[in-house]
Amino acid sequence: MSALPADFLEKLRRLLPQDGLLTAPEDLAPYECDALSAYRRRPPAVALPRTEEEISAILNLCRMHNVPVVARGHGTGLSGGALPIEGALLLTLARLNRILMIDPLARTARVQPGVRNLAISQAAAPYGLYYAPDPSSQIACSIGGNVAENSGGLHCLKYGLTVHNILEVRAITIDGDIITLGSRAFDAPGYDLLALITGSEGMLAVIVEITVRLLPKPERAQVLLAAFDSIANAGVAVGQIIAAGIIPAAMEMMDKLSIQAAEDYVHAGYPVGAEALLLVEVDGVNEEVSDGLRVVYEVVKACGATEVRTALDEAERTRFWAGRKAAFPAIGRISPDYYCMDGTIPRGRLPEVLVRIAELSEEYGLPVANVFHAGDGNLHPLILYDANKPGELEKTEEMGGKILETCIAVGGTITGEHGVGVEKLNQMCVQFSSAELEVFHALKAAFDPPGLLNPGKAVPSLHRCAELGAMHVHHGQLPHPELPRF
Amino acid sequence: MSALPADFLEKLRRLLPQDGLLTAPEDLAPYECDALSAYRRRPPAVALPRTEEEISAILNLCRMHNVPVVARGHGTGLSGGALPIEGALLLTLARLNRILMIDPLARTARVQPGVRNLAISQAAAPYGLYYAPDPSSQIACSIGGNVAENSGGLHCLKYGLTVHNILEVRAITIDGDIITLGSRAFDAPGYDLLALITGSEGMLAVIVEITVRLLPKPERAQVLLAAFDSIANAGVAVGQIIAAGIIPAAMEMMDKLSIQAAEDYVHAGYPVGAEALLLVEVDGVNEEVSDGLRVVYEVVKACGATEVRTALDEAERTRFWAGRKAAFPAIGRISPDYYCMDGTIPRGRLPEVLVRIAELSEEYGLPVANVFHAGDGNLHPLILYDANKPGELEKTEEMGGKILETCIAVGGTITGEHGVGVEKLNQMCVQFSSAELEVFHALKAAFDPPGLLNPGKAVPSLHRCAELGAMHVHHGQLPHPELPRF
Repeated sequence: MSALPADFLEKLRRLLPQDGLLTAPEDLAPYECDALSAYRRRPPAVALPRTEEEISAILNLCRMHNVPVVARGHGTGLSGGALPIEGALLLTLARLNRILMIDPLARTARVQPGVRNLAISQAAAPYGLYYAPDPSSQIACSIGGNVAENSGGLHCLKYGLTVHNILEVRAITIDGDIITLGSRAFDAPGYDLLALITGSEGMLAVIVEITVRLLPKPERAQVLLAAFDSIANAGVAVGQIIAAGIIPAAMEMMDKLSIQAAEDYVHAGYPVGAEALLLVEVDGVNEEVSDGLRVVYEVVKACGATEVRTALDEAERTRFWAGRKAAFPAIGRISPDYYCMDGTIPRGRLPEVLVRIAELSEEYGLPVANVFHAGDGNLHPLILYDANKPGELEKTEEMGGKILETCIAVGGTITGEHGVGVEKLNQMCVQFSSAELEVFHALKAAFDPPGLLNPGKAVPSLHRCAELGAMHVHHGQLPHPELPRF
Repeated sequence: MSALPADFLEKLRRLLPQDGLLTAPEDLAPYECDALSAYRRRPPAVALPRTEEEISAILNLCRMHNVPVVARGHGTGLSGGALPIEGALLLTLARLNRILMIDPLARTARVQPGVRNLAISQAAAPYGLYYAPDPSSQIACSIGGNVAENSGGLHCLKYGLTVHNILEVRAITIDGDIITLGSRAFDAPGYDLLALITGSEGMLAVIVEITVRLLPKPERAQVLLAAFDSIANAGVAVGQIIAAGIIPAAMEMMDKLSIQAAEDYVHAGYPVGAEALLLVEVDGVNEEVSDGLRVVYEVVKACGATEVRTALDEAERTRFWAGRKAAFPAIGRISPDYYCMDGTIPRGRLPEVLVRIAELSEEYGLPVANVFHAGDGNLHPLILYDANKPGELEKTEEMGGKILETCIAVGGTITGEHGVGVEKLNQMCVQFSSAELEVFHALKAAFDPPGLLNPGKAVPSLHRCAELGAMHVHHGQLPHPELPRF
């Protein structure tokens, strides 16, 4: 950690109340990493503003002193977007945590960025409304972080990502200007800056207020569990359910290793021993749910499901989902370490990609647990490894890179909902052409001319990609992802 | 019309086949305007490329000779986005008109920009699929133009705007580079360039291919017609239907003047004499539609509807919609000229804004017909005037400006689905702050450093806004919109 300039720190201290600036090593430790904990760096200082005015003044000061700044929500991100940067101020938005308004007629909530995702649905519940995107971390994660990463969740198959569920964002630029992106009314003129800032990983502006869309709670939601003795059959069923005209609220898939781990952990009532499990939720009005479930039942049977059950009551439905939501920590119980990937593929390519992942698992001698948003084609292979065994992390990263490149090769992408952060910078060189990366850099410069907002994240430099390309040619294959240089 | 440089034209001619370049005055006349026909300018030349390679070469040539270029689809736009610019080449994409692929499993269609909106649904019909956004001009308008303007339509209340129904766009930059925006898979890493180019009105890049999302045709669609003896009551009903948890496929409102004009024109079976008419379509599975209609029926009755009917059969349903879709030409039959506005407002403010429009109509002595997407809060007031009466166009534009400013004042926007083009440049100065406009300009420069793509459209210069502000203060009110200067 390189220190911040003394005069900068002095001015910063005068801008903020006494509890608004942390510089003691023991206070800084909690901010060393986000949920991608393999990457750590202690920040030189952490600012904890309470108001827009304070944030505006902080950004202004950073610009004047040419000090980079990393904005952070509650640190649950999985790609290192909130990882501190050498010589940069860490700016946490945790204290902007008020729900400013719930408008049940317009079905919107206006909230500050530090509000927890689940808190919005809890506040909207008395009106029969809720906020749809539900990352597995929804108890803890902040809505500002959700916007910065364009987060997804189990129910994004039917209800879309964060970008589809927000209407307006207030943000502060590196110049300290407050800008409004999007509109609470239908559509907004000018370029679509709301979509642009969503998923921009703190690189364009600091988000200080969000107006989200609320949805009425469906009359009924029912989940169907189908077991298969072949993962390929389960993959085929996913495509066939969509082809039959059903849009499930959620459609999740787990493989044998995940089923076993989750069952041991939360006793969800899963069929242990099955090669694959599909959880398909249908919601809506009562008859629609009955009709939908009938179709899903017929499709999974036709695809060779060995066991099909619907949850008998709300308690069993909650249990079925609890198993899925606890799948990551459940894997954490059976392996010293695991590496969570986040690739996407066109739904129709699911069976062949699962086969390829199994081949890679064999080749590298590393077990893989597959838990994923099957309906979206959003894979979360978890590679099980032991960081204490020399070379195993490197092997894991190499194998992870190959999985992502397989995703690109079949027409998919390197991230569905976890963001690029520092984790997938190298794969961005594979995903995008130089012309496309140049557009990204020009956009960054348009918002943030001095390049002080979360620099070095999300979009690799052309130099980095060129070096990677050179190594490419030299070794005849892509090198494994390395720690980012910034 | 100022001529293009002779050496530029000569090189352009060599790039294209003989029928690929128009320069004779009689050939250029059809390209003088789009559907905002009050603004006209003859282009010096029109290029009609057939391939991406030709477009890439044309853009490269424009950049080398510093010649501006205006891209155009089928010219049905309502805000002058495709209006020729002094000394600029007009580039029409009409010949890129092939449907490249329909993938019924992935539910996507890959099409060229010159394909007509309705042609996509017709090609997808054999698979039970369709493309949802349906502008009233869908028989004629091009999908490339839909993307450039982020077009809406009757069914956008439930199914979203163009931006919500496309997955991937291929575009060519002013440097001639081909870039891919978005992804056919779930989500895409990096900034959301797909949303950014959607609605960018030809200012960022030239769109050469679009992958659209297709939806399964709903099992049943039924429309309910409700007549009211007060437009305010109809406005209240709109809010109450949404508040009751129904999301209609479409919810349209017409006032007395529109009802009468449409009925005289297409004999839709509307209750002539009613002050307001609501058309509410519910679609989905059979029971869902029955349940939804029951709720809508109860709400409109409680809000004082004087007559409520559902279409007896598909023929009557088609007739009900034919009246609405023909409302603009129907008004054209009863008034020498009309001016179509496109403001949006938060749904809850509908009743008061309708009252304000009626007051303005009285004050200016100009009749107004209200036809609009009520569910979205997207108003289309049509101001009836006679361009042959001296001063009446100016009076109309002034009144139109006041309607749009009323929209902004209640938290709405100056355009819902028609774009800014040249028509609403001045209102952009009211809608956005200088800091926000600066971001727009920086984005434009990031994509198009020499500023050659459709310059002067969509985003006003800060100078223009400053002048307008100065006039503002001087006269104590906003001047009427004037012809843009470029």
